[in-house]
Amino acid sequence: MIAFDYNTKVYYKDIDQMGIVYYNRYFEFFEQARTELLADIGLVVSEIERKGFYLPVVSAKCNYKKGAHFEDEIIVKTMINEAPLARLKIDYEVWRKKDNDFLADGYTIHGFINKEGEPKRPPKFLLDVINSFISD
Amino acid sequence: MIAFDYNTKVYYKDIDQMGIVYYNRYFEFFEQARTELLADIGLVVSEIERKGFYLPVVSAKCNYKKGAHFEDEIIVKTMINEAPLARLKIDYEVWRKKDNDFLADGYTIHGFINKEGEPKRPPKFLLDVINSFISD
Amino acid sequence: MIAFDYNTKVYYKDIDQMGIVYYNRYFEFFEQARTELLADIGLVVSEIERKGFYLPVVSAKCNYKKGAHFEDEIIVKTMINEAPLARLKIDYEVWRKKDNDFLADGYTIHGFINKEGEPKRPPKFLLDVINSFISD
Amino acid sequence: MIAFDYNTKVYYKDIDQMGIVYYNRYFEFFEQARTELLADIGLVVSEIERKGFYLPVVSAKCNYKKGAHFEDEIIVKTMINEAPLARLKIDYEVWRKKDNDFLADGYTIHGFINKEGEPKRPPKFLLDVINSFISD
Repeated sequence: MIAFDYNTKVYYKDIDQMGIVYYNRYFEFFEQARTELLADIGLVVSEIERKGFYLPVVSAKCNYKKGAHFEDEIIVKTMINEAPLARLKIDYEVWRKKDNDFLADGYTIHGFINKEGEPKRPPKFLLDVINSFISD
Repeated sequence: MIAFDYNTKVYYKDIDQMGIVYYNRYFEFFEQARTELLADIGLVVSEIERKGFYLPVVSAKCNYKKGAHFEDEIIVKTMINEAPLARLKIDYEVWRKKDNDFLADGYTIHGFINKEGEPKRPPKFLLDVINSFISD
Repeated sequence: MIAFDYNTKVYYKDIDQMGIVYYNRYFEFFEQARTELLADIGLVVSEIERKGFYLPVVSAKCNYKKGAHFEDEIIVKTMINEAPLARLKIDYEVWRKKDNDFLADGYTIHGFINKEGEPKRPPKFLLDVINSFISD
Repeated sequence: MIAFDYNTKVYYKDIDQMGIVYYNRYFEFFEQARTELLADIGLVVSEIERKGFYLPVVSAKCNYKKGAHFEDEIIVKTMINEAPLARLKIDYEVWRKKDNDFLADGYTIHGFINKEGEPKRPPKFLLDVINSFISD
């Protein structure tokens, strides 16, 4: 398993009139978290794109347990559990720092395409890195 | 079944550097679409809230088939297939108008809470309306 | 003067915990409004871009008078008062439909660049259209 | 002068199809930056709100010099230059970390209201703190 804890904070921009984070904002937190997980193992997304590969989301899910509030510090626990065959699945859990409350979980599934938008197999350089960390 | 077609359009604000709608924007389209579906059967969300009921999202999913582009007109086909027992499920399909391309589908599941955030049964006035339309 | 009334509606996604539209959302409304004003005089932004011209914002301002609420219908009155020499200025006023309340005003100023990001003079086809409408 | 450097990073969610940060996102960066500046001098916004004061934006401006790109680390230099008489002005400059490029500047002006939305003088506890730091 590849794991990364991404720390971020909730601001006014994220909060709706129920006083909690608006539901689609979690998918931004997920994006920030997976970008940092990938950078952490040497796979900087900008560099993946410069090599001609893009990882569009093909499926995304989030389950909401408790609302996060303005100025809450949260941790997005981010995990890759298996190397991608055709698609890469990334799992997320969101926790509030101050009381260790479990706020949400979810996943995103990513395809691989080239600049022209054509589906591709996951590139070897990416598989090699993920496999080397997963088999650890 | 209760169904509603919500028409909207894609703007620069929605588009990422792949030239397609960023994945979390679909959940905004879903929110706009369900607000209009509910208004269409007489359940204006502001009025539901004035009566002391809130419908937070407890689960949300989206599957992405094709990317929507800047200035695409899209239709969000929105459906309620059954009256809520404890939770209300709403389904969505997103289609591009000009070529009738199928872009995405998904759902949201909503709980019912009061102003204090305590879980509630779905209110009778809401069940009555939904049941009357579903049994049509 | 070139003028266009853009109608839109406020949803949960726009509202913060003060119960009013979060301040940066007005700049999305402005973008939607100017895109429709330009389309209305035959200048579809996608087509301007296909011709190799981009109109990045170089300055943007908004003054907030009254808050817009969830499910408010609003009108963005959008105006071009003069043809661009080097830069295009677009003015906006936001009004609430139901009580004709004045909510906000502001402007955006746009430069012209090519695909490589180099500054350009406003293209002739665009000047011709704007001049023909302004001199009316 | 009260000054604070807020560090953040640009993600896919922020980038438009020109490959640069969409113009309204800077106002989110400004909000994050001023929230941290205020916390840094002991004025946590959540606590100000618990005391019954809200600081809605009454005017906001941004000038865009250069575009920020995906995965750019940026610094938002945030400043309060004078204690508020009726309104609080906060200034911002955005710089890219890696090449020290100047990307944008702007300001926000904030009023003071109570829970009922009525205009208020700036509260004494807030003036005292700001004055003590400014006169340093």
